[in-house]
Amino acid sequence: MTGSEPTIADAAINREAPVAIHAQISERIRNRIARGEWPAHYRLKSEPEIAADLGVSRGTVRRALATLIEEGLLRQVRGRGTFVTSMTFEPSIAQRLSTLSEDFSAQGILFDTSVLFHGLVAPPQPVAALLDLPVSGTVFQLDRLRSTGGSAVTLLGNFVRSDLVPGIDDFDFAGASLFGTLEGHYGLKIGTARRTFSAEAATEAVAEALAVPVGAPVQYLQQVTYLTDGRPIEYSDVWIQSERLKVTSLLSRR
Amino acid sequence: MTGSEPTIADAAINREAPVAIHAQISERIRNRIARGEWPAHYRLKSEPEIAADLGVSRGTVRRALATLIEEGLLRQVRGRGTFVTSMTFEPSIAQRLSTLSEDFSAQGILFDTSVLFHGLVAPPQPVAALLDLPVSGTVFQLDRLRSTGGSAVTLLGNFVRSDLVPGIDDFDFAGASLFGTLEGHYGLKIGTARRTFSAEAATEAVAEALAVPVGAPVQYLQQVTYLTDGRPIEYSDVWIQSERLKVTSLLSRR
Repeated sequence: MTGSEPTIADAAINREAPVAIHAQISERIRNRIARGEWPAHYRLKSEPEIAADLGVSRGTVRRALATLIEEGLLRQVRGRGTFVTSMTFEPSIAQRLSTLSEDFSAQGILFDTSVLFHGLVAPPQPVAALLDLPVSGTVFQLDRLRSTGGSAVTLLGNFVRSDLVPGIDDFDFAGASLFGTLEGHYGLKIGTARRTFSAEAATEAVAEALAVPVGAPVQYLQQVTYLTDGRPIEYSDVWIQSERLKVTSLLSRR
Repeated sequence: MTGSEPTIADAAINREAPVAIHAQISERIRNRIARGEWPAHYRLKSEPEIAADLGVSRGTVRRALATLIEEGLLRQVRGRGTFVTSMTFEPSIAQRLSTLSEDFSAQGILFDTSVLFHGLVAPPQPVAALLDLPVSGTVFQLDRLRSTGGSAVTLLGNFVRSDLVPGIDDFDFAGASLFGTLEGHYGLKIGTARRTFSAEAATEAVAEALAVPVGAPVQYLQQVTYLTDGRPIEYSDVWIQSERLKVTSLLSRR
């Protein structure tokens, strides 16, 4: 082991110290993470390897890791190992047709939703075309802002074909989820979606909502959602505050 | 049919005109697309529906569509229908562990690769950690610029564990693909990757490479690739010119 290696065995464990050995180990790991030597998604060696490197028992290593998992600094993924946690939220919306609210809930992240606008409107021309609607028809427009820990992370603008969801404007989408309502209340079978990701400069409206400077880079996502019978049901524009929320894909080669 | 509906049957086909009927139909569709009334990804009605709307034969419709497919304005997807083509390239790298060069090739897009830097270097600290390497080790660094039609679309910075790829610096990556070389020449079994997407402001180096203003929003993608045995093999930073290339996912709900 050389001093330049990012290992936790670069100094011997102090068996005479008043601090328990497992606490010495967790403190070392905590420091590696704090110094950025072990970045987000860094995978730690296995418990037996760490135990052998340090000359301690596996149980001691397990206890040290458990402390850090409880603190939210490490995360264990079955069959893959122990990883340094990312400090930003990482929904997997690039990969599965889940919604941000579902991803937040699955990760145990608390979020607030505020409804900025809701109502039946004439669809903008490109939205009408993508939803197979006449522009003389109406769509249900829903503009929402999602925040976590008091900070805005996403601005969502949805357009839903109103002919398929009579009375939808009576729901309170500060509490209810849009996809949940479409599926649960209206019995619509959501099948597929097409999501396109790009980086955009924040317009005045987006900048104000996400509390970033006008022109700041924001992650933009455009989506068209189709029912299982192929009819388009929903179009959305989503702007994401990239510093607080990064979209992630775990991909397989074969 | 009202004049405000985005249909192609808003004026009667002129059967006396010197222009063939199929050419009149393709010209109408061309105009819809040019005016933005039928945006990228808009799905056209089926051939029988269009034929009925216009009072022409299916064969005439098919001929009109064939012209536009040849011009690259429409695209037919088996089992899904006929769509307006996107004028930007849309790789599905958010969804599959394909590489940009594979996606370009699959879509028949010609691209040029220029190698900006290659060589064995000491890994930056976070890269070393993510690749399970000592910083005293070396990685193969490869910086490339991909262009299509003479315009830069992506700047790629790869770091490969050099211990697993002896002699890799002798390859000419202006022609060879990196993943192809890892798999084909070195017999490495690439298993999974983790890709994270965010919007970033172009740094001076990125701006110069992609020919955008400093601070302009660029799509940033960070990737760590693992072999099937779980060892990390490659880390990369990718910056994408969002106006010319949009990352796409086709997702299923169940």
